[in-house]
Amino acid sequence: MSFLSQLDLSIETNNSFICVGLDPLQERLPQTIKSKPKAIFEFNKGIIDATADLVCSYKPQAAYYHAQGAEDQLTLTINYIHQYYPHIPVILDAKRGDIGSTADQYAKEAFERYQADAVTVNPYMGVDSIESFTRYKNKGVIVLCRTSNPGADAIQNLIVGDRYLYEVIAEKAINEWNENGNILLVVGATNPKELRRIRKASGDTTLLVPGIGAQGGDIEAIVKGGLNNLNKGIIISSSRSIIYASNGSDFQNAARRATIHLRDTVNIYR
Amino acid sequence: MSFLSQLDLSIETNNSFICVGLDPLQERLPQTIKSKPKAIFEFNKGIIDATADLVCSYKPQAAYYHAQGAEDQLTLTINYIHQYYPHIPVILDAKRGDIGSTADQYAKEAFERYQADAVTVNPYMGVDSIESFTRYKNKGVIVLCRTSNPGADAIQNLIVGDRYLYEVIAEKAINEWNENGNILLVVGATNPKELRRIRKASGDTTLLVPGIGAQGGDIEAIVKGGLNNLNKGIIISSSRSIIYASNGSDFQNAARRATIHLRDTVNIYR
Repeated sequence: MSFLSQLDLSIETNNSFICVGLDPLQERLPQTIKSKPKAIFEFNKGIIDATADLVCSYKPQAAYYHAQGAEDQLTLTINYIHQYYPHIPVILDAKRGDIGSTADQYAKEAFERYQADAVTVNPYMGVDSIESFTRYKNKGVIVLCRTSNPGADAIQNLIVGDRYLYEVIAEKAINEWNENGNILLVVGATNPKELRRIRKASGDTTLLVPGIGAQGGDIEAIVKGGLNNLNKGIIISSSRSIIYASNGSDFQNAARRATIHLRDTVNIYR
Repeated sequence: MSFLSQLDLSIETNNSFICVGLDPLQERLPQTIKSKPKAIFEFNKGIIDATADLVCSYKPQAAYYHAQGAEDQLTLTINYIHQYYPHIPVILDAKRGDIGSTADQYAKEAFERYQADAVTVNPYMGVDSIESFTRYKNKGVIVLCRTSNPGADAIQNLIVGDRYLYEVIAEKAINEWNENGNILLVVGATNPKELRRIRKASGDTTLLVPGIGAQGGDIEAIVKGGLNNLNKGIIISSSRSIIYASNGSDFQNAARRATIHLRDTVNIYR
């Protein structure tokens, strides 16, 4: 099944647009977990078991595993989701981008080594840095368009002719690079105005929207501006405000409560 | 010592602007090496020992190690260079780019886990995706500007006001983001015209120039257009045409000959 079909199903089954970001920092793990041998995996497992009936996807952020030399625990985490919750797709957040021969290796990393269902990619190097990924027809390829961080504006909102750079990216990604129909776009929750413009420019394309929670995005504006004509087409991603909802031994319950709260708030505006 | 000072010294000591890219693919390794337990590291060691008096730097490409689950061999490779050829700096080619809190983790990966002396980064997400790296004052931060791949043109040569996007990036990187004076730029060897414009826009900034060799860049145009006012400021990087110069048991000699040839050709135009 393709990533997008699987995502549609998980949205429907769990009545949820929520994606939980698995960005574990050793120093922020609960005391009860910290000293265990595979602490990161144990923590992720706890979060996953507590939220798997509430989410449409999981999104491990590669940087956290790379920084800590914990690639094996990233593998264990993705395998665990595939084995116990096979209907929930996994997005590897890696923001890769390189020349074709190198991009081939990054695609191999994401889709073959880690068995991710989708991956985030950076568009600055153009189509040949993307097609190593889109070639995997059943996988999702999520192109950075307008990101949630404060510094994004100075680049992504540069004026190119009569449009912003991020609109040019959205248009190229959807109209020129999307031969296999497996491209999605990243649009940060901190930019509701930009989100509406991208929704207009990109038809029913699914948008991955990070930046809710710790980064402060406005949920109502995001949901109303982001939904497509089919009343779907968004993945609302939150990491820190869910996984660190408590750093005590009650971290699973706290993560569950935070996920329910976010899911239900989103669903009000659906 | 800072990356840029170390680089100046290695350029002078070895009379060389050449950087050898360490992008090892298991299937392209010489038969004599392929079956060894740490084959990638053994191969890299062979290339390094054969070329260390001929280069100004080494540049392992992270994707190759990630795809093959060979992070341990990337560590071994960089440690080996630091231990046996401590005057030769190591550039980790990883093209990272993410929001600040995540970029912190990528910087930790490059500079603390792998002990690289410099890293390549992608500018699409703006200054806060770069400053996690530039904060390490003695490390080099090499910002993608105009890359060597065919698809780069459609994005990086977009017109922003009266300039190309890649010129805006060059200017921001050098004039706004470079508080610690440790930024360099990537300019592909396949674009001599763009290289001249970037040299003009970026003063004496050091340029990393990949795309010689397998990708077909023109050496004379690159050297003449790339050198700065001090008659230095370029790193000319080649990977496949050196490391795979032979796939037989003579791969070390072949890599050495290819490096000497490239170094001497570059030095003709110096």
